[in-house]
Amino acid sequence: AMIASGVMAGKIALEDAYNARDRDGIRLVDELERIGYLGPEPCVPRPFRAYLELHIEQGPFLEESRLSVGVVEGIVAISWSRLAIHGVQDHAGPTPMRIRHDALVAAAAVVTGVRSIAGQLGGDAVTTVGTLDVVPNIVNAIPGRVRLSIDVRDPRTEALDRARAMIEAVVREACEREGVRYELEHYWRVPATPFDRAVVDAVERAAKASGARYRRMTSGAGHDAQYMAALGPTGMVFVPSRDGRSHCEEEFTPMDDIEHGANTLLLTALDLAGRA
Amino acid sequence: AMIASGVMAGKIALEDAYNARDRDGIRLVDELERIGYLGPEPCVPRPFRAYLELHIEQGPFLEESRLSVGVVEGIVAISWSRLAIHGVQDHAGPTPMRIRHDALVAAAAVVTGVRSIAGQLGGDAVTTVGTLDVVPNIVNAIPGRVRLSIDVRDPRTEALDRARAMIEAVVREACEREGVRYELEHYWRVPATPFDRAVVDAVERAAKASGARYRRMTSGAGHDAQYMAALGPTGMVFVPSRDGRSHCEEEFTPMDDIEHGANTLLLTALDLAGRA
Repeated sequence: AMIASGVMAGKIALEDAYNARDRDGIRLVDELERIGYLGPEPCVPRPFRAYLELHIEQGPFLEESRLSVGVVEGIVAISWSRLAIHGVQDHAGPTPMRIRHDALVAAAAVVTGVRSIAGQLGGDAVTTVGTLDVVPNIVNAIPGRVRLSIDVRDPRTEALDRARAMIEAVVREACEREGVRYELEHYWRVPATPFDRAVVDAVERAAKASGARYRRMTSGAGHDAQYMAALGPTGMVFVPSRDGRSHCEEEFTPMDDIEHGANTLLLTALDLAGRA
Repeated sequence: AMIASGVMAGKIALEDAYNARDRDGIRLVDELERIGYLGPEPCVPRPFRAYLELHIEQGPFLEESRLSVGVVEGIVAISWSRLAIHGVQDHAGPTPMRIRHDALVAAAAVVTGVRSIAGQLGGDAVTTVGTLDVVPNIVNAIPGRVRLSIDVRDPRTEALDRARAMIEAVVREACEREGVRYELEHYWRVPATPFDRAVVDAVERAAKASGARYRRMTSGAGHDAQYMAALGPTGMVFVPSRDGRSHCEEEFTPMDDIEHGANTLLLTALDLAGRA
């Protein structure tokens, strides 16, 4: 995700971006060349007055409040961790409960614990176990290994430290109770990204001028704007997404809201270009 | 598993057995032909005096008690269920906790609940969630669907009914709490298989005569003897398996115990053949 802005902002090496492969094993650079999008220009920062991005909210807030436009003040801090649990694989029949070291039983306690961390952090914190893989994943085998991911987001960067301490306590307790080994790695973290105050104010003026009902808000998802904010003044415009659904076939935004969003983007650009 | 005895006992159709494929897609009948094991004889029951099977215990009891031979009195009852949980897939960032319907959070509660059912059933009951698959299984997506398996075994056939009621209660509560739909299917069940008393007694006499330290016990795993018991007098001899490990590279039985097991098998056969 956000691979072109990541390269431009120097957060992703060009070679790594080129060599990224999709699930079918196709390399990005090969596909860019094939469709004629590789281009001769180097992907490096250039001076710009402001970077603006129009996007669906991917959350429920605008729709719930019957608003057309979100004036995005910044992007939440994000932390990703991965956990490998090593139990003892064994036959599910003749192995009595008292000698089991079941990696999935420990993992289940971690999933439950991670869900509860969001409430303990309070505010707008969210916590998610998105992936979980079992080995050997056979009906009559006690799971020997489980790998899972933990995603934590919070508008307050410092909350990530508290979240990580809570994750470590949850994992330690779950694995000790089941008598299994584990490796926990906090492998990616981005602090909260506040957008440029002047750009955010310009977006708000534009939303008002377009006649849209709007609110200021924080983005819970990462966007190109996150990388671009390191290079120059940045802001975003959100429009509603029905039921908060995104990256799926149910994704939908009413045409009225799209119009308000597009007008807000246009008026913001004119304003920042001194043409308002 | 137990495919040849299943066909002979009429529990598995010959066509289904022939068409069974391994993970590489190879059909059983093709491989039997290739290695010269297909043979011209029909796989049907024939009269026999007794069926005897020597096997590793696949559990810890013999090793723990420093015994060489298990005189198997029968095989536990087994019940298999499958559960599909349908939550709402969504982006893990902008979706607040209060509107989530996370299939994996519900599944985790089921795994924890299934683990506790064994203790509630008491005795030698065992309960296992061996498989669990998440869709879409992406770090920053709230799991939309989970499928998992539930394996219950108990020497008391009637305990399976209680287990199924407990499973249904655990699943209902977990899914209602998370606001997700589910389908639960109890799709396979075999009652406990008691072995022929005269054969079991003969195995015990043989164990004693061989000089082995032994005990009577129930098998927690399925064996060919389970199908063969429907066709004629059947019994089994167990030898220890280190740490109860089986179907893995750590599987190991000391040579002394193997000798005691083989002698018990031989003496049982001679006894039943009237040659003891």
